[in-house]
Amino acid sequence: MTLVMTNSPTPTRPYSKAHALDLDARDPLAHFRDAFIIADPDTIYLDGNSLGRLPKRTAARVREVVEREWGERLIRGWGEGWFGAPQRIGAKIARLIGADADEVIVSDSTTVNLFKLVIAALHARMGRSKIITDDLNFPTDAYVLQGAVKLAGANYRLEVVHSPDGLSVTAGAFAQAIDADTALVELSHTAFKSGCVYDMRAITEMAHRAGALMLWDLCHSVGAMPLDLHASDVDLAVGCTYKYLNGGPGAPAFLFVRKDLLVETLHATSLQSPILGWFGQKNQFDMVTEYQPAPGLTRFLAGTPAMLSLAAVEPSVDLILEAGIDRLREKSVRQTEYLIALWEELLEPLGVKLNSPRDANCRGSHVSLGHPEGLRIDRALIEEMRVIPDFRFPDNIRLGIAPLYTSYADIFEGITRLRRVLVERLYEKYPTSRPEVT
Amino acid sequence: MTLVMTNSPTPTRPYSKAHALDLDARDPLAHFRDAFIIADPDTIYLDGNSLGRLPKRTAARVREVVEREWGERLIRGWGEGWFGAPQRIGAKIARLIGADADEVIVSDSTTVNLFKLVIAALHARMGRSKIITDDLNFPTDAYVLQGAVKLAGANYRLEVVHSPDGLSVTAGAFAQAIDADTALVELSHTAFKSGCVYDMRAITEMAHRAGALMLWDLCHSVGAMPLDLHASDVDLAVGCTYKYLNGGPGAPAFLFVRKDLLVETLHATSLQSPILGWFGQKNQFDMVTEYQPAPGLTRFLAGTPAMLSLAAVEPSVDLILEAGIDRLREKSVRQTEYLIALWEELLEPLGVKLNSPRDANCRGSHVSLGHPEGLRIDRALIEEMRVIPDFRFPDNIRLGIAPLYTSYADIFEGITRLRRVLVERLYEKYPTSRPEVT
Repeated sequence: MTLVMTNSPTPTRPYSKAHALDLDARDPLAHFRDAFIIADPDTIYLDGNSLGRLPKRTAARVREVVEREWGERLIRGWGEGWFGAPQRIGAKIARLIGADADEVIVSDSTTVNLFKLVIAALHARMGRSKIITDDLNFPTDAYVLQGAVKLAGANYRLEVVHSPDGLSVTAGAFAQAIDADTALVELSHTAFKSGCVYDMRAITEMAHRAGALMLWDLCHSVGAMPLDLHASDVDLAVGCTYKYLNGGPGAPAFLFVRKDLLVETLHATSLQSPILGWFGQKNQFDMVTEYQPAPGLTRFLAGTPAMLSLAAVEPSVDLILEAGIDRLREKSVRQTEYLIALWEELLEPLGVKLNSPRDANCRGSHVSLGHPEGLRIDRALIEEMRVIPDFRFPDNIRLGIAPLYTSYADIFEGITRLRRVLVERLYEKYPTSRPEVT
Repeated sequence: MTLVMTNSPTPTRPYSKAHALDLDARDPLAHFRDAFIIADPDTIYLDGNSLGRLPKRTAARVREVVEREWGERLIRGWGEGWFGAPQRIGAKIARLIGADADEVIVSDSTTVNLFKLVIAALHARMGRSKIITDDLNFPTDAYVLQGAVKLAGANYRLEVVHSPDGLSVTAGAFAQAIDADTALVELSHTAFKSGCVYDMRAITEMAHRAGALMLWDLCHSVGAMPLDLHASDVDLAVGCTYKYLNGGPGAPAFLFVRKDLLVETLHATSLQSPILGWFGQKNQFDMVTEYQPAPGLTRFLAGTPAMLSLAAVEPSVDLILEAGIDRLREKSVRQTEYLIALWEELLEPLGVKLNSPRDANCRGSHVSLGHPEGLRIDRALIEEMRVIPDFRFPDNIRLGIAPLYTSYADIFEGITRLRRVLVERLYEKYPTSRPEVT
């Protein structure tokens, strides 16, 4: 792979800082970086795929919610915008994922939302006893599925399709696993380790041909690439808001249910949440004790939404809509390509492997680099080099590109500092065991 | 009831504002009011039992979490205090409810926590098919129980003990309902409408005699009165943090499991959450795909906690610990007694009923006043009188006393302005139908 720079008025050496700065100067989205708090410009943050940066307007919005809406308006805040926030913010996220405004709602964690949808799906496919997933899935997905199968009863089982290379699973392997006994297929659209992206349409179609429902976990995709749930006829989805959506630590997650699945027909029961709560109740403030599901997706709410955390989601989703998700994906691809080109030139000769796909069409917005000393390299990057990646066992140094604020200079600095850690063996002083928290 | 004021250096007329101010002047907890944002002192806020006021230090704490911990420390925030927050704040709440530090954890909503514990309880009492509750319970409790019974299967059922007077249910009625087929008894300790408080020890003992587990919803009790879960040998509890604990709109709830129920024995299975998530996993960051429950109560966490909302809970719990929960209860009782005395003098003659117990020992920290025009009176109080109560069907004007910041002057103003609404029939211009949100 080579860096072909066309229309460059001032040609720069391809692996120089000047070149990176030149790329930034010509990046039409570069100014969005100014929308974020960047306290220390010399700290290279490549972990926006774990926790996105803080948008300036979010800091202002949270202050407003706390100090004015809660502090001054008190309980009246509910009538002045808090009610409806799960739906309103959901409608904005819907535009990023190819869904209708009333098909997405924000509340609870990804884990809790997964649980709701998995149990709902098993009920909607009563008589089928199998859930299919793969071994590339995020751990919490695996745990939720294990718990759901246990809860559903002895005749249910979870079938885990294995990846031969830790990168992805072939369509053929899924074709073999999905059968007439399959109730649900649940997969992460972008794998959290490799950054490998599944063909949403092909796998969804496979599930549908067998009569199963398809649930996509969009955590590592949403906000970094356009998604089109309708075009792929997806049934169910969940996604987190604290990665590329920059919603803040533990920000509430969203869930998607294709509209027609909420409608009772002669042939199909409508989807219902297993967790019946007052925010999912029809006419909530009638306070009647007999549960009646709210119309539409609102029935998938449960308890009172965590308003401070929920409010923090909205300003950044607005920013992403302003930037345009197609343009963000375009930049993300350019940037992961750039990172891979730097890896090839500067790191591969030092024994660093690429644990992500070379083909940009199959790659999300993070790149995993593999090295047997990955864990210690990660520590050295943080402690010595002011580079913040993250680490995923066994050997993945995960570098996240958040195209809304990651600069080419960030990527250049990240890779060259990583090279220095290797060349100067700066990692050797760090323990080989896992630190408590990274 | 009469107001007997002893040790009063300057006797004041008992139903005067001067008297109320005198009571405030001699209130040893009065200075805690200064710890709260009170934007408009003329607005009388009597809805701290729905949403507590904003402590000044909470505003500062949320700013710190957003602007410094998230904005500057980014992902490192997790290692610098975010991990462990559910347990750390839980340990503080434990001191308010007579539990050990490792028996309380804060995360998710009351509804989701109820769901986890109800399902866990049904599994721990496999073979028993009945859940007992009453018709005074908060709606979300009723919905969760209905959902759990549906999920558990056709042989399960929910038995609702009816209250003859809408105030409380007699011990005898529970004694009749709880039997050898009962898996779980779930009740609200303080009823959300009447403010009636159950005898925790007596009903728990009743459940235990039948071999059932007891789950208390402490939402309308915690922070307003001392609770002693250990002394009553309570098995399970949940509670919200946005009422008397002032944690902010939709702040995460807590759950309690008595420690020995988490230990596997020859005779009993240990309690497990039905929602298996990565925050409940043993050695979470090993990221293995086989679920293993974390030791202790941490297994009842599910997804990533909503950190902004969670962080807002802690400063106010600290305030309550500083004030002392026994002293707060003492003040709360004095204040509800004062309110009832004012009602008797000023409102009862105008046809307002007392829908709460007269006996302070059976009363929480809110008082419900009944009037056939309750809904319109509530609107008039808000719109014309700058008094904020809340309303619960059919006729309850609910007045909440939050002893940490409610003043005697607040109560005096609230009642006298309510009297004015009645005397001048100011409610007549408001519609008789329910507004969208109150």
